[in-house]
Amino acid sequence: MSMYVTGIGRTKFGVSDKTLAQLAYEVILKAIKDSKLSINDIGAIYVSNFLGGILENQLHLNSLISGLLPGTNIPIIRVETACASGGAAFYAATMALSSHDHVMVIGVEKMAGFDSEILPHGISSAGDVYADQRKGVIFPAGYALIAEEYINKYGITAEDFALASLKAHQNANFNPLAHFHQKKISLQEIKESMVVCSPARLFNCSPISDGAAAVILSRERRSSRDVEVLACSLRTDSISLSHRKEITSFPAAKLAAGDAYAKANVTPADIDVAEIHDGFTIAEVVGMEDLGFCKPGESKHLLRRGETTLQGKIPVNTGGGLKANGHPIGATGVCQVCEIVTQLRGEAGDRQVKNAKIGLAHNIGGVGGTAIVTILRK
Amino acid sequence: MSMYVTGIGRTKFGVSDKTLAQLAYEVILKAIKDSKLSINDIGAIYVSNFLGGILENQLHLNSLISGLLPGTNIPIIRVETACASGGAAFYAATMALSSHDHVMVIGVEKMAGFDSEILPHGISSAGDVYADQRKGVIFPAGYALIAEEYINKYGITAEDFALASLKAHQNANFNPLAHFHQKKISLQEIKESMVVCSPARLFNCSPISDGAAAVILSRERRSSRDVEVLACSLRTDSISLSHRKEITSFPAAKLAAGDAYAKANVTPADIDVAEIHDGFTIAEVVGMEDLGFCKPGESKHLLRRGETTLQGKIPVNTGGGLKANGHPIGATGVCQVCEIVTQLRGEAGDRQVKNAKIGLAHNIGGVGGTAIVTILRK
Repeated sequence: MSMYVTGIGRTKFGVSDKTLAQLAYEVILKAIKDSKLSINDIGAIYVSNFLGGILENQLHLNSLISGLLPGTNIPIIRVETACASGGAAFYAATMALSSHDHVMVIGVEKMAGFDSEILPHGISSAGDVYADQRKGVIFPAGYALIAEEYINKYGITAEDFALASLKAHQNANFNPLAHFHQKKISLQEIKESMVVCSPARLFNCSPISDGAAAVILSRERRSSRDVEVLACSLRTDSISLSHRKEITSFPAAKLAAGDAYAKANVTPADIDVAEIHDGFTIAEVVGMEDLGFCKPGESKHLLRRGETTLQGKIPVNTGGGLKANGHPIGATGVCQVCEIVTQLRGEAGDRQVKNAKIGLAHNIGGVGGTAIVTILRK
Repeated sequence: MSMYVTGIGRTKFGVSDKTLAQLAYEVILKAIKDSKLSINDIGAIYVSNFLGGILENQLHLNSLISGLLPGTNIPIIRVETACASGGAAFYAATMALSSHDHVMVIGVEKMAGFDSEILPHGISSAGDVYADQRKGVIFPAGYALIAEEYINKYGITAEDFALASLKAHQNANFNPLAHFHQKKISLQEIKESMVVCSPARLFNCSPISDGAAAVILSRERRSSRDVEVLACSLRTDSISLSHRKEITSFPAAKLAAGDAYAKANVTPADIDVAEIHDGFTIAEVVGMEDLGFCKPGESKHLLRRGETTLQGKIPVNTGGGLKANGHPIGATGVCQVCEIVTQLRGEAGDRQVKNAKIGLAHNIGGVGGTAIVTILRK
């Protein structure tokens, strides 16, 4: 069965006064308008959200969203897989397309403005209570362990990490809806920013953002702007790094990528533009290798040669990535698809990748406990 | 495409020392053993859990479960739709069966032992923060409003409600895995139990339970014990009662039931045994009517005539229901399917319904914001 993205919509990422329901409503309207469908054409909705329960005591978001669409009563399901929630909702929606002509995916998250105790505590819920949380392995620490090991193994430098962050911020400057659209930052400032969890500095970490994104999946192409979903694969792994044999690569991501490439019948060399999950810079570095854009340990060469910038061989995170577009967790995986669709439609304006025909989105939960790889074609 | 339940497993419901992962592992082993499949035959897993984030700061349960099955790395997704989480995970799994030969559904919840402040607060997360929670409409209050309105409209009595609870406890006495298996209770004790939220008394409310349940769905029948899934339908409605035109019936449940009956090509009169979501007794009363077992307002006659007891025309909640089997929220919708399968297999022992050929499970989230109706045939 063929699948197409026939509508997309997103909010500006950043700090918002809107509620979860209001953010969701904004992207429902935008995606419907973009698709030229009616809300009554939508057969089912999958909504992703990570922290509504812990931060706001708001679960049952599928029903919350049903209330925004009175009289529809359609099947709506909430999916949660930590930072991969958006990708997982998209994946579940591809399954539901066997039963419906059009399925909507909504990702939504509110994180800004919560106090400095509950927020990191909530985010740490993506790790095992016993094996991770109670031993202090919150996410900056987990990814710092990975970065340290990667440095020891492959000799990547702080400057290489900074190059990845700089590229993200430069791309965000061309994306009016990015969290850090107007922020100007230099390589030197990135390298000298405060240490969050060594070796990760402030500009190696994604920010705390509010936001939402939506995508409409359809069985048939409806216009020349529609983008085909060639493959969407999801794989999982143990929740705790302590149960992994090696930590400088994520098996779930490699397996999802391998499956997606096979289903799409393309190779890494065919990918013209990619969204890679850069919750921390090291995740993007590992991601490039797990996706086969280079061999293990060789991401640094891609970064040094500027191959992942807009002008490079494989532009990465053209909208700014989690680092600079922002990371409203439940929305992230959905927004990645929006960005790739925007690129493949040729509607990315100043950040447009020339001749982009095939794009890929890579969404990670926890420290690689969940991975989704989606491949799309113009 | 045909679908069959080819394996089931559940824990005892009640107060458990096991962790979420340990409870899940127990039912994975039981369902696999029951099915005679190998874990390597399972193509994907859908896991339902409601309160892990709020109560234990444990989200990302799909990855937690992946860690229990090292080397499998299969797609696993967590689904949450309040008290309907189990039914929604089952529904999502039926969609995934288009891509896999065998899909497992796991429902798991730990609720016992948490303090008396966080637990009702967490449960209230199934209602809208603004329209319900901050106005004091927690769940006992929401269902009490429904019960009051129902009493005014249809004249049901406290004795009718007590008859439903008595039947649940009598059935649980025949179910060794029920939370209240060994509890003996009289109609008088039920009627005189403490008022929780008028008109609901203690024995009109489901208990706080730990537990897990699992089901394996397969595309093909593998043995004569397998049970066919004729239909599984999910519908939604507004999260808040304040947005409903009437509250003595749940439109989402009626729509899900109508769709399921049509797909299964059966009528309410064809149902031999039913699991009806009795988080509060009034929910079972409304459920019987939404499912078409009687007309609006006539449930009291079914109760007075004993038609929903094991010997009646339409035995309801043969395993004890949420009231007496227990209500570990994420597990409930999955365990309902286990009970129906056990009945249709003819393996229900002392609580066996004679000649049960077609069964139905009805799972509700919030005050009818989510409803799943599943119809199974021997």
